[in-house]
Amino acid sequence: MQLIDGKAVAAQIKLEIAEEVAQIKAAGGKTPHLAAVLVGHDGGSETYVANKVRACEEVGFKSTLIRYEEDVTEKELLACVELLNKDADVDGFIVQLPLPGHISEDKITEAIDYRKDVDGFHPVNVGRLSLGMPCFLSATPAGIIELLRRYNIETKGKHCVVLGRSNIVGKPVSMLMMQKATPGDCTVTVCHSRTRNIKEICLQADILIAALGVPEFLRGDMVKEGSVVIDVGTTRVPSDKTKSGFKLTGDVAFNEVAPKCSWITPVPGGVGPMTIVSLLRNTLLAGKKAIYV
Amino acid sequence: MQLIDGKAVAAQIKLEIAEEVAQIKAAGGKTPHLAAVLVGHDGGSETYVANKVRACEEVGFKSTLIRYEEDVTEKELLACVELLNKDADVDGFIVQLPLPGHISEDKITEAIDYRKDVDGFHPVNVGRLSLGMPCFLSATPAGIIELLRRYNIETKGKHCVVLGRSNIVGKPVSMLMMQKATPGDCTVTVCHSRTRNIKEICLQADILIAALGVPEFLRGDMVKEGSVVIDVGTTRVPSDKTKSGFKLTGDVAFNEVAPKCSWITPVPGGVGPMTIVSLLRNTLLAGKKAIYV
Repeated sequence: MQLIDGKAVAAQIKLEIAEEVAQIKAAGGKTPHLAAVLVGHDGGSETYVANKVRACEEVGFKSTLIRYEEDVTEKELLACVELLNKDADVDGFIVQLPLPGHISEDKITEAIDYRKDVDGFHPVNVGRLSLGMPCFLSATPAGIIELLRRYNIETKGKHCVVLGRSNIVGKPVSMLMMQKATPGDCTVTVCHSRTRNIKEICLQADILIAALGVPEFLRGDMVKEGSVVIDVGTTRVPSDKTKSGFKLTGDVAFNEVAPKCSWITPVPGGVGPMTIVSLLRNTLLAGKKAIYV
Repeated sequence: MQLIDGKAVAAQIKLEIAEEVAQIKAAGGKTPHLAAVLVGHDGGSETYVANKVRACEEVGFKSTLIRYEEDVTEKELLACVELLNKDADVDGFIVQLPLPGHISEDKITEAIDYRKDVDGFHPVNVGRLSLGMPCFLSATPAGIIELLRRYNIETKGKHCVVLGRSNIVGKPVSMLMMQKATPGDCTVTVCHSRTRNIKEICLQADILIAALGVPEFLRGDMVKEGSVVIDVGTTRVPSDKTKSGFKLTGDVAFNEVAPKCSWITPVPGGVGPMTIVSLLRNTLLAGKKAIYV
C-alpha cells in the first residue's frame, strides 16, 4: 500500500504557481486577483475563507475579502456580485457557501459572470465540464484528477466506482472519469443512498471515489485487493483526544481498507489540501485569460 | 415481453401539445414559433429537418426554415444566429448538425441564446441538466425519460447501464437516470469503447440504454431475465429487401434480446419518434416562457 500525499502535491503545485506568478510580475503582467465574499460568521466558512486568502498570499496573488452580516439581503448580495463582475481588476471571485436561508444560492451562483467563476459552480462551467470543453473545473473533482495525474495512476479502461451524486463532487467527478482523456477513460458507476447492492458494486472497483459524507462508510470487506481509494469525506466527528474537540473523519475506514489498496488518500492530508490549490489554479487561468477572453 | 411503443406515445403527446396550442391561440396568446437552420444538402439532415417542420405544422406551431449552401461562412452563420436570437417572434431555433468542416459546431452552439436553445445543446442547458435545474433537455435523453414515465417503469434503486458516452445521449441520460427524481434514482454505470468486461456489466443491469451506434451490439447472452432495454441506435445498414436500399438497425439484436426483457423498445418505432416530440415540447415551453423569462 502506498499513500497518495495530497499535502505534498498541493505544496508542490503552490510552488509552481508562485513561480509562474513571479514570472508574470517580472514581465510587467497583471497580478492575479481573487475576491472572496463571506456572509455571516459560520465557523467552517470562516476557516475555509481564511485558508483561501492565506493561500493567495502564499503564491503572490492579490486577494480581497468582502464581508456581510447574516442579515444581508439577496438584492444587496446580487449588487455585490454585479460590482465584482464589472471590476476589471478582479480576475475571479467566489461567494462562500452555504448562504443564509433567505438567499437563493442558485440565483447568486448564476449571477456570477462564468468567466470569473473560479469555483466552477456556474451552469456554463458545469456544462462545459460535461461536454469536455475547457472550463473552470470545480475544486474537488479537479483535485482528484490532479492527484491521479501526478501519481501516474493508470485509469484507462478501469472500473471507477463513485460513491455519492452531489453536484460538487459525485456528478462532476463521474463525468471527468468517463471522459476520453488521461486521467479518464474509465467505466464509471455512480452509487448513492438508493443503491441496493453497494458492497457488491464496490468490490468490482479498480478505483473507488468515496464522497458520501458518511464517516467510515467504506469498510475493508467492500474493496478488492489492489484497488485505488480516494477518500473525499471530511466529517467533523466529536473527539476527546483532540484540542479542537473533533476529528476530521473520512468516508473510508482507513485501517481496514488501506492494507488492501495499491494507493489510498489519507484524511486529512489527501484530497482536502488539493481543493484550495484547484481554486488557485483557476484564478491563475482567469488572470491569464487562458480559458475565456 | 412487452413492447414500448414510442410511435404511439409520440402521437399521444403530439395531440396533447396540439390541444394546448389550440387553447393558447383561442385565448389570444402567441403561436409558438420554431426556426430551423439547414446548411447544405445532406440526405439525413434534409429528412430530419423536413420531419421537424412537418411536426411543427401538425401541432399548430409556426415554423421557419432557413437554408444555406454548403459554402456558407462561419461569420454568415453566426450573423444568422444573432438575428434569430434577437427576433422576438422566434421562440426557439435549431441549427441542424453536422455542419461543414470549416464551421465550428461548438462556436455556433454557444452563440445561440440558451433561452432559445430548444435542442438543449448549449452549455447552460447541459449544466442545468447536470445540476437538476429546469432547462431545455436534449431530445433523445428527454424522450427516453418520457417513455419510462408514460409506461410507469420503476427506476428507483435499479441498476441502469448506459452503453455510450456521447454528449447528446450517453452523458446526459446517465445524469438524468442518477438524479433524485422519478424517473431516476438509479445506480448508473456508463460503459464505452474502453470498457473491458462489458458483458459482465450488462448482465447486472435492470435497465439497459444502448447508445453506442453499433448495430446489434447487445446480444441475447448479455441481458438478464426481466430487464428493460431501451435501444437508441439508428444505423442505416444496407439492405436489398427495402425500397430505400437500407434498413434502420438498432444497437440491440432484437430477436435474441426481446424474449428475455420485461420491456423493450423496437427500432424503428421506439426512441426515434420521441425525439421530435421532445423538440416540440421544448418549443412549447419556450413559447410559454416556462423555463426562462
